[in-house]
Amino acid sequence: MLKKTQTSLEVRYAETDQMQIVHHSNYAIYFEQARVDWLRKQGMHYDKLENEGIMLPLIHLEVNYKKPAVFGDQLQVKTFLTEIPNVKISFDYQIYNQRNELLTSGKTIHAFVSSETRRPMRCPQSILELLSD
Amino acid sequence: MLKKTQTSLEVRYAETDQMQIVHHSNYAIYFEQARVDWLRKQGMHYDKLENEGIMLPLIHLEVNYKKPAVFGDQLQVKTFLTEIPNVKISFDYQIYNQRNELLTSGKTIHAFVSSETRRPMRCPQSILELLSD
Amino acid sequence: MLKKTQTSLEVRYAETDQMQIVHHSNYAIYFEQARVDWLRKQGMHYDKLENEGIMLPLIHLEVNYKKPAVFGDQLQVKTFLTEIPNVKISFDYQIYNQRNELLTSGKTIHAFVSSETRRPMRCPQSILELLSD
Amino acid sequence: MLKKTQTSLEVRYAETDQMQIVHHSNYAIYFEQARVDWLRKQGMHYDKLENEGIMLPLIHLEVNYKKPAVFGDQLQVKTFLTEIPNVKISFDYQIYNQRNELLTSGKTIHAFVSSETRRPMRCPQSILELLSD
Repeated sequence: MLKKTQTSLEVRYAETDQMQIVHHSNYAIYFEQARVDWLRKQGMHYDKLENEGIMLPLIHLEVNYKKPAVFGDQLQVKTFLTEIPNVKISFDYQIYNQRNELLTSGKTIHAFVSSETRRPMRCPQSILELLSD
Repeated sequence: MLKKTQTSLEVRYAETDQMQIVHHSNYAIYFEQARVDWLRKQGMHYDKLENEGIMLPLIHLEVNYKKPAVFGDQLQVKTFLTEIPNVKISFDYQIYNQRNELLTSGKTIHAFVSSETRRPMRCPQSILELLSD
Repeated sequence: MLKKTQTSLEVRYAETDQMQIVHHSNYAIYFEQARVDWLRKQGMHYDKLENEGIMLPLIHLEVNYKKPAVFGDQLQVKTFLTEIPNVKISFDYQIYNQRNELLTSGKTIHAFVSSETRRPMRCPQSILELLSD
Repeated sequence: MLKKTQTSLEVRYAETDQMQIVHHSNYAIYFEQARVDWLRKQGMHYDKLENEGIMLPLIHLEVNYKKPAVFGDQLQVKTFLTEIPNVKISFDYQIYNQRNELLTSGKTIHAFVSSETRRPMRCPQSILELLSD
């Protein structure tokens, strides 16, 4: 339960801005890549979820910027759950650089939504089981 | 025929990179916005095209970078056809800044594709008529 | 004081994702454009601030997603301060579509930093005066 | 000489658009990542080049789109020179998916520019030597 994964990302040139640091909007994309990786490592792939009629739209995003990342940085994104999902699932993230400095922390909250009815649903049992392995 | 439109765009902060100029990948997006505007001004909206079963996937992109755009620049994108569309449609673009300097020129070529069959199709008569007004 | 501005934005095709809605990372960019516009309407331009040695790095971002925006939507971003800036400045945002539905709300917090010393500084008197007009 | 490298990239969710394929503007970013990797594998890093006063601004971009990439695709970008650099350097790119299908080919042309004088310069001898190893 509350499994933690680590995802590697290299900062791209296109992600920098004229302050010569990573533009802040990219961290939402880093979090997303880390979340896709977290799901995959639990045995779920976004595509598979969508095929099973489960959508995970984002309802809340929060980012705290402590130190900037720069072009070429080798980032590690640590991703973990802080509670057992119910009608929502919350991910926490911490991004470190190659010198193990904490650059950014954040959180995303997603609703479980049925792609058929477009209504909220509970976290499917199959996902809860994957988490409790 | 071969109608020309002009579209205004303001350079966003997020579009800059650490060279303190607009990152080159954004010009494809500027061209796209200008093309959407061109179509709308001829009485076609992307959505309407898609509802009529017509897709216009990009098959070729070309950009020539002469001078950089910078944050806050007020750009004008001039968009025009150089020939009557047939199975393909080609747009030419020129981007000027607020001092009327030519910054970038480019071209995109799109295929007419039926969204039903996913096969190439000719430019629909309805579009040719809009162009010849 | 606590002045409110409204900024118009049109959703770009490139901003959509495969859920056929605006990808969530773009709202940080919408907020930024609205903030640039807010500053400009108070008589400050980012460039001018930077020339005066004032940087406004983002330290916190928060977004609440209520309803999705889609391609072609004409968005209105309402931007306002909730308190008088001191060593930090906080902006609140609300994004509405053309049917006046509230799609997204959010907040950004920025530190005043001297570009010379790279140290935190108080909100310059010149800015406080602009705000109190 | 004319060395060829191969760079792996995973398609990110944020890179898709409402046609449910990778938005065309991302290929310029894929090419850039592949170019950074090519340079690194020859013993040059963008940062090092910039420190030595050498800039490589893009002056021409060309992309041919054959088949779309989709979310989760594991791409291979093959990068190579087609001629010995002089005042310009040209890179060619081919992007393949995990089924070894050629999705996209393209070219970028860059000028050698001195960051001190901002004037064009010849390809430095040190780079030519790296290429001829």
